[in-house]
Amino acid sequence: MQTVLTNNRQNTQPVSSVPHVVIIGGGFGGLYAAKSLKHAPVKVTLIDKRNFHLFQPLLYQVATGSLSPADIASPLRVVLSKHKNTQVLLDKVVDIDPEAKKVYLESEKELNYDTLVIATGVSHHYFGNDQWQTEAPGLKTVEDALEMRRRIFMAFEAAEKESDPEKKQALLTFVVVGGGPTGVELAGAIAEIAYKSLCGDFRDIDTTQAKVVLFEGMDRILPPYPPESSAQARQALEKLGVEIQTKTLVTDITNNTVTFRQGENTNKIEAHTVLWAAGVKASFMGRILAEKAEAELDRVGRVMVEPDLSLKKYSDIFVIGDLANFSHQGDRPLPGVAPVAIKEGEYVAKLIGKRVRGQAVEAFKYYDFGSLAVIGQNKAVVDLGFAQLSGFLAWLIWVFAHIYFLIEFDNKLIVMIQWAWNYITLGRGARLITETPLVSESQSKAKTSQYQLAEN
Amino acid sequence: MQTVLTNNRQNTQPVSSVPHVVIIGGGFGGLYAAKSLKHAPVKVTLIDKRNFHLFQPLLYQVATGSLSPADIASPLRVVLSKHKNTQVLLDKVVDIDPEAKKVYLESEKELNYDTLVIATGVSHHYFGNDQWQTEAPGLKTVEDALEMRRRIFMAFEAAEKESDPEKKQALLTFVVVGGGPTGVELAGAIAEIAYKSLCGDFRDIDTTQAKVVLFEGMDRILPPYPPESSAQARQALEKLGVEIQTKTLVTDITNNTVTFRQGENTNKIEAHTVLWAAGVKASFMGRILAEKAEAELDRVGRVMVEPDLSLKKYSDIFVIGDLANFSHQGDRPLPGVAPVAIKEGEYVAKLIGKRVRGQAVEAFKYYDFGSLAVIGQNKAVVDLGFAQLSGFLAWLIWVFAHIYFLIEFDNKLIVMIQWAWNYITLGRGARLITETPLVSESQSKAKTSQYQLAEN
Repeated sequence: MQTVLTNNRQNTQPVSSVPHVVIIGGGFGGLYAAKSLKHAPVKVTLIDKRNFHLFQPLLYQVATGSLSPADIASPLRVVLSKHKNTQVLLDKVVDIDPEAKKVYLESEKELNYDTLVIATGVSHHYFGNDQWQTEAPGLKTVEDALEMRRRIFMAFEAAEKESDPEKKQALLTFVVVGGGPTGVELAGAIAEIAYKSLCGDFRDIDTTQAKVVLFEGMDRILPPYPPESSAQARQALEKLGVEIQTKTLVTDITNNTVTFRQGENTNKIEAHTVLWAAGVKASFMGRILAEKAEAELDRVGRVMVEPDLSLKKYSDIFVIGDLANFSHQGDRPLPGVAPVAIKEGEYVAKLIGKRVRGQAVEAFKYYDFGSLAVIGQNKAVVDLGFAQLSGFLAWLIWVFAHIYFLIEFDNKLIVMIQWAWNYITLGRGARLITETPLVSESQSKAKTSQYQLAEN
Repeated sequence: MQTVLTNNRQNTQPVSSVPHVVIIGGGFGGLYAAKSLKHAPVKVTLIDKRNFHLFQPLLYQVATGSLSPADIASPLRVVLSKHKNTQVLLDKVVDIDPEAKKVYLESEKELNYDTLVIATGVSHHYFGNDQWQTEAPGLKTVEDALEMRRRIFMAFEAAEKESDPEKKQALLTFVVVGGGPTGVELAGAIAEIAYKSLCGDFRDIDTTQAKVVLFEGMDRILPPYPPESSAQARQALEKLGVEIQTKTLVTDITNNTVTFRQGENTNKIEAHTVLWAAGVKASFMGRILAEKAEAELDRVGRVMVEPDLSLKKYSDIFVIGDLANFSHQGDRPLPGVAPVAIKEGEYVAKLIGKRVRGQAVEAFKYYDFGSLAVIGQNKAVVDLGFAQLSGFLAWLIWVFAHIYFLIEFDNKLIVMIQWAWNYITLGRGARLITETPLVSESQSKAKTSQYQLAEN
């Protein structure tokens, strides 16, 4: 290791002739690609704008106060600490040049690559209504989850103080838009908060009077699952107290009012808390690839990839994870879920290692081991392909699958204990409402003094 | 419990003739006062601007990535859920009227009280240099701790990318201003991060080249402790690699440069991360009490209280915890620490209960069971009055004293496991760098789109 004072290289690109693999994004795809390159004769640089890998399948538990962000986050440097051929850079990619084989970073650094792996995922999609973002936040980042948590628990606090019965009911109404796994998990968790966890904590509201509504555009929730799973999930959610509205399209979200269309009818619901779980679109990197590398994009901006996950025009650029549209297997693209991203990352790492040695690799093939979604504290639906399970057994499968894939041992331990504790007590220890950090570089002094005046 | 729809009372004040105790602030003083009033024949309203009690003695561990905020926070509603005579309100007190016995809240509610207990604590004190707040954040709230964490870990990330050796060293220089318990604990933890936890995680910096400097104005660190404890703490910190500068006054903090005076000499140090642990001043409520209730304030704005913790002019207003200056015992006011606040809260609760029954109570008396400060992973100093301990035994006492006073059982369990795990691995699992929530009501759309553009 070089010491601080003697190191004055101009950038971090390797000076040796070892091939340089640059991976953009430290989610499931990028991290598993980097991990799998541990013994390959390459130098690896993993770039992420955050210093941690986030276990997104459990993010809704941060949003609903069951877990803390650190419980589901693993510092990328720790995970890759023993990978001596790998450097982690906290930075943002602003552009690429596939002809010169360069990546440009926000810090004004540039990196030369031999192979580029792009795994930057997707963000929320408001179907052309980006103004809804403020009223109905989505769930992709830790900050999104803390914002959802703040809104959910703040609504009950405000209801406790509200004397107007209509406003009180609007504060106690929660709308989740989108009946995929995230929407189902959020709606189930909010119902449990209202009808179980918070019981007895308030004096001027009865939290069991809260209303949790789940909107889905298709004719059943969990549309990618088999119909049996959808029906089981619906039954379990309704038992928890969730009101499910299918074939329902949200047409407006303004001033705590959600307008929705069901066939010919248009209706409104007053709801102080609206959460968005309806759609995703490809990230910024999709557009860059279309522009700079002639990549073909699908309708939501995902990059069409070749059977080996590379670009048609550039065989040294790979796109994996949610950003990739892999349509060479089955009649639909592979779904944007963690297991697909992991397998794609591992495949690309293997391909790169073999390519360096002059060996060929067969096209990527994904073996589906099933889909999982949880509904409340002890119920889930599991689709194993050959069998559909629901209820407590499905929930146990869900628990162990998630614990198993948590990256670090201490996370596994803490999450297991926290779940066991929450299961016994119905508690939600992580329900603290936090706010914008007091002092941050982008903040004005005005905000600071305002805070000082407002303190108790 | 009333149901939502039938409840349309105009405010939350009690309509019965049971005496109403209003407690402002849910820290150690306010929470223990409320807890101790469980069986008193009174109605209690506890008002806090946050929905949780924060275990402040461990806040530095959140700032340095050992614990998550939820590990040391207990939702006030959960702690007081079984106290059926108690209502928790998430609100801010903006004014009081001691003649009319009213408290005015930010939500435009007003409460009538029979007895008022004020426990709103203290905030940072920059000795007239409030412009330093942005450069050198203090440590009072969860947000403060997350901001400190962000700065500490971000400095290493920036150093990894910096090619200028001088800038690199400034990024790896950490200055802690103030050698009290918080300053000592912060400096020790940062030294451990740099010299132990992060070793091997970076490729272009050697984190053992980092510099951690602790400034103290007096002639020794931990000035309120016996000189033996100060000397032991100094020795332990220096062994960890902390540079200690006593008799040192900070005269300026601008553009990552700290200017300081030692006797006649003025010096400068380039440091990207400066943390403030030097002084506190009484909160906003002190000024309100001086203005509205003729309370006498000391030099830092604390309220001078009578031997029974009440105000001279209003025997139905009590001030407890860090905000109170209790000078009726010993030659100095009681220190602003958790045990004093707890005992004051319990005393006031007992007094209120007895007063309702027409009984008198003796003046408040504090029995000091000792002071504790931790220095790194397995060393502490403990002053038990009759004996001063240091090293591993002192650390064990520190560990158990803190676990014991954590409010909830699940917090005790999680913190114990997290500590054991950190102790074995020297790890800091909670080192994730988070930012301002993406969407918050006060944020402009502009910020949101900026974020979208910047994504990888």
